[in-house]
Amino acid sequence: MDVVADDPGADARTSRAAPSSSADDVELAVSSVILALLPHPETGLATPWLPLVRRIRQPQEGMWALPGGPLRPDEDLGTSARRTLERTTGLTPRYLEQLYAFGGLDRSPGARVVSIVYWALVRPDEAALAVDGENVEWFVAAELPELAFDHAEIVDYALQRLRAKLGYSQIAHAFLPDEFTLAQLREVYEAVLARQVDPANFRRQMLASDVLEPTGRRVEGTSHRPPSLYRYSGDAAQGRRNLLTPREKSV
Amino acid sequence: MDVVADDPGADARTSRAAPSSSADDVELAVSSVILALLPHPETGLATPWLPLVRRIRQPQEGMWALPGGPLRPDEDLGTSARRTLERTTGLTPRYLEQLYAFGGLDRSPGARVVSIVYWALVRPDEAALAVDGENVEWFVAAELPELAFDHAEIVDYALQRLRAKLGYSQIAHAFLPDEFTLAQLREVYEAVLARQVDPANFRRQMLASDVLEPTGRRVEGTSHRPPSLYRYSGDAAQGRRNLLTPREKSV
Repeated sequence: MDVVADDPGADARTSRAAPSSSADDVELAVSSVILALLPHPETGLATPWLPLVRRIRQPQEGMWALPGGPLRPDEDLGTSARRTLERTTGLTPRYLEQLYAFGGLDRSPGARVVSIVYWALVRPDEAALAVDGENVEWFVAAELPELAFDHAEIVDYALQRLRAKLGYSQIAHAFLPDEFTLAQLREVYEAVLARQVDPANFRRQMLASDVLEPTGRRVEGTSHRPPSLYRYSGDAAQGRRNLLTPREKSV
Repeated sequence: MDVVADDPGADARTSRAAPSSSADDVELAVSSVILALLPHPETGLATPWLPLVRRIRQPQEGMWALPGGPLRPDEDLGTSARRTLERTTGLTPRYLEQLYAFGGLDRSPGARVVSIVYWALVRPDEAALAVDGENVEWFVAAELPELAFDHAEIVDYALQRLRAKLGYSQIAHAFLPDEFTLAQLREVYEAVLARQVDPANFRRQMLASDVLEPTGRRVEGTSHRPPSLYRYSGDAAQGRRNLLTPREKSV
């Protein structure tokens, strides 16, 4: 095998000269899936919502799309995602993580675009402070309008990843205040899994695991038997950030 | 916030016109971290190895780098990674997954390059069939020479992810035949974690978990008390592929 031919060590640095140049043919975008758990307008139950931006140009003008845009030469990937989040919601992300790079050949008409997608998880108290950017509207993730390009698939993937990470990480913490009740924690699980969770079993499992620790405090201002407050033990930050985010990429 | 200004819905499709165009300023590469667990030349203990390619051009000519190259306009990301694996090792990947996109501003001299990195996990029987491409050499991951660009950090990230996934996934299966002994499974853990694991505790934990099931068969051709063979129960494919790989990206 002639590895030299493609100069695999060149890592694209010879692409200007090479016929397989990507620079002129593939555009690079950074888009974001911004998720918050908010009450469903009819049921009132917490459910994932996300902001979309209405396209004001062709192709697919007028359709709803994920916020994002071309990667600027002067910003790294996380910076681009943070800028999108700020521009779309006015928020500074607590939890922002690279989700996946989508680069299918058929994902858009016209120019080939590879989109590196980030996802931000927003707490209700943060979402309450969100200011919609122009052409921005929040939607229930399970009831989205038709989206531009392959963005519906990207949203599905983000929700799938969220459900999976609930099982092996403290990602639920990204949707909770530092101290929370077991009912609040269960509500996060029910919203993400889109199904009811048995309170007794949930309580047993959570307390059996060593990820929660009681703060010794209880919810104030409630009537008799106020619920106890818990926090995530160990690195409580884990739910807020992906600890496996490479150093220079950490956000 | 004027979301229109940056046309976040445009997803880079207007970048040719826009001053923040990425097309002319950012090059896109796909590189691969190819990992196999093979005996250490001195200790004989299984340890992660990976193939590197010696750079034959500037910048950083002569240095070792991860195999990869510019994304071709006619191939999607996974196809590019598969091509690199075939070209570097002659192998067709069983386990190939997108690892992370690295896009720091300072990661390379000269042209800005964003590298979307895949990782391939290779079984010993596959590694035995590997044919080194030109300028390709395998190294012990813990004893690498100085690498070009930020590739050392990328390798560290891959090993970190591998250690983490060992804890919550069946990724160990990617390094094992369909049927294996507990000793073989423990060897994978010891190689990835780079430390000894107590056989009795390991056996207890693995058999207590419901991920393993006995095949009823034993290793043949050994003396008395041949060890039992196990397989991963349920979706044994889980260790082989990232079930969360988006459909069109599955490899």
